[in-house]
Amino acid sequence: MTVSQLAKGIKAGKRRPLAKGITLVESSHPSDQEQAAQLLTHLAEDRDTIRIGVSGVPGVGKSTFIEAFGNHLIAEGHRVAVLAVDPSSPTTGGSILGDKTRMETLSSREEAFIRPSPTSGTLGGVAKRTRETMLLCEAGGYDVILVETVGVGQSEFEVSSMVDCFMMLMLPGAGDGLQGIKRGIMEITDVMVINKADGDQEKLALQAKSEYEHAFHFLQTRLPDIPVRFHAVSALKNKGITEVWSSILQFIDALKQQGFFNEQRMSQNLSWFKRLAEDALIEELWRGEHNREMAEQLKKGIINNEILPSVAAKKMVSIIKKADSN
Amino acid sequence: MTVSQLAKGIKAGKRRPLAKGITLVESSHPSDQEQAAQLLTHLAEDRDTIRIGVSGVPGVGKSTFIEAFGNHLIAEGHRVAVLAVDPSSPTTGGSILGDKTRMETLSSREEAFIRPSPTSGTLGGVAKRTRETMLLCEAGGYDVILVETVGVGQSEFEVSSMVDCFMMLMLPGAGDGLQGIKRGIMEITDVMVINKADGDQEKLALQAKSEYEHAFHFLQTRLPDIPVRFHAVSALKNKGITEVWSSILQFIDALKQQGFFNEQRMSQNLSWFKRLAEDALIEELWRGEHNREMAEQLKKGIINNEILPSVAAKKMVSIIKKADSN
Repeated sequence: MTVSQLAKGIKAGKRRPLAKGITLVESSHPSDQEQAAQLLTHLAEDRDTIRIGVSGVPGVGKSTFIEAFGNHLIAEGHRVAVLAVDPSSPTTGGSILGDKTRMETLSSREEAFIRPSPTSGTLGGVAKRTRETMLLCEAGGYDVILVETVGVGQSEFEVSSMVDCFMMLMLPGAGDGLQGIKRGIMEITDVMVINKADGDQEKLALQAKSEYEHAFHFLQTRLPDIPVRFHAVSALKNKGITEVWSSILQFIDALKQQGFFNEQRMSQNLSWFKRLAEDALIEELWRGEHNREMAEQLKKGIINNEILPSVAAKKMVSIIKKADSN
Repeated sequence: MTVSQLAKGIKAGKRRPLAKGITLVESSHPSDQEQAAQLLTHLAEDRDTIRIGVSGVPGVGKSTFIEAFGNHLIAEGHRVAVLAVDPSSPTTGGSILGDKTRMETLSSREEAFIRPSPTSGTLGGVAKRTRETMLLCEAGGYDVILVETVGVGQSEFEVSSMVDCFMMLMLPGAGDGLQGIKRGIMEITDVMVINKADGDQEKLALQAKSEYEHAFHFLQTRLPDIPVRFHAVSALKNKGITEVWSSILQFIDALKQQGFFNEQRMSQNLSWFKRLAEDALIEELWRGEHNREMAEQLKKGIINNEILPSVAAKKMVSIIKKADSN
């Protein structure tokens, strides 16, 4: 299948070409990467989509929430793609989010596309694929993209830098205001959902909701003119899901009215460009036999106290500078 | 004055050449940098020194502590250099640590060398100078180096990556165990000093000390086999200073006995080499008329949706790759 055939298939909303395209995007083989770039260029086009980040610690009920939320979106006429940014490292083995038995009813729907997360690679690497996978899904007609992650390491910040709206799922009964929230999370949260507001925990969830609402009053949130929204929901009992979705729509509307929507996507693209270029260049520095030998020699010199780190660094960089002046 | 004359003067323990050398190291002018590298190479030599990081929030009494601590070290026959890593940004103006009226008795001592911190530059830049300034001071016969910083941003982590032992100053009456400690600080702390254990606050300080001791029991500290040490002191009344110093000496001894002392300095040097090389290379990428024009063009393309960030990044990096194959 040629790249343009693949592009055609994806645009026609077919699942097989979409899956194939994603495999291409995820491949690290240079010729696949070349094809992936061509494919993405073929598909580049402004589309009216909403990108939502969904985060929360393990046990908060992300899968159950996404299942309920996704089915609601489909009932409203949307097509939904669920992607994952999984910070699990290759060394710990296996992905945190890769469980295939999750989201059973949603995954059986024609209007949903769920991509299990890659089980290896660096966070940056995985996130890179996620961004491009998102573009492919949008080209395939999925107009709401949910990017899911667990609250480990930098993964929420990674996700928040690729979505329009960041949703944080919380457990009821965190109790002590913002103590339970990881540093920096408040500054990226647009919608906060306290899940498991059912049975014994309903009261606790409502209490947590008003505590968070109160605590956020004193915080500088991401967008000064657009308040953070709070919801207590029961994903299990399908309660409060409608309200979350209309809250997100209101948020997106406010973003658009204030001109932030496009601005945000643009600045996300620009920082992404910068980071990809810098990452690729750094990779270049330590790659290749010549560079690696040079690095090893310099490191030996540093260990034996024969060369200073700063002098060694200048020599290392001069490999590329020298090539420049040839 | 030639570089070798400068090196001779520094080795002879003279203050003027040392100050001159530091100015050279701090300069961003290429020819100064060249000379600084030569100077540092001249002075490179294994020396028996102790590098101690001292951190704590504003108001914890860092200056008073360093004054008392420094004078004690001098009484014990040491020569002490005090350097600062100051995270204050050029935009907020002025340095947090640059106050010249601090440490009056210490700064009048022949055996002490206090370098006010540079008032501008990025954290990385300042820290770079601090590392090299440290080497110059060691060459000048200062055998205990205190690197001081406030608890802002990443500055403590920066400092902990250039010292043998990291000391954290705390206020009494933090009260609720580890709640008041910034995330990650526990993992870099080797010695914790609760200051202001005098007057009304003495009891509070002792209480805080035992609370921290208790809380640290449950934590993974930096070195599994070398326990963190805790002290309640009054820098103002000169109480407990001797104990802090012997604690540090014990800590350093333990490091050496377990072979970690040299290993730590070596791995600090290797990561520093890596970071300097990567920083310099990235700087190179966005510098120069040709590269800047290219970047501007690509950014315009991204904004106008004509080119994908990933494709633009590849093009940006190819500037350097292309130069490589010439």
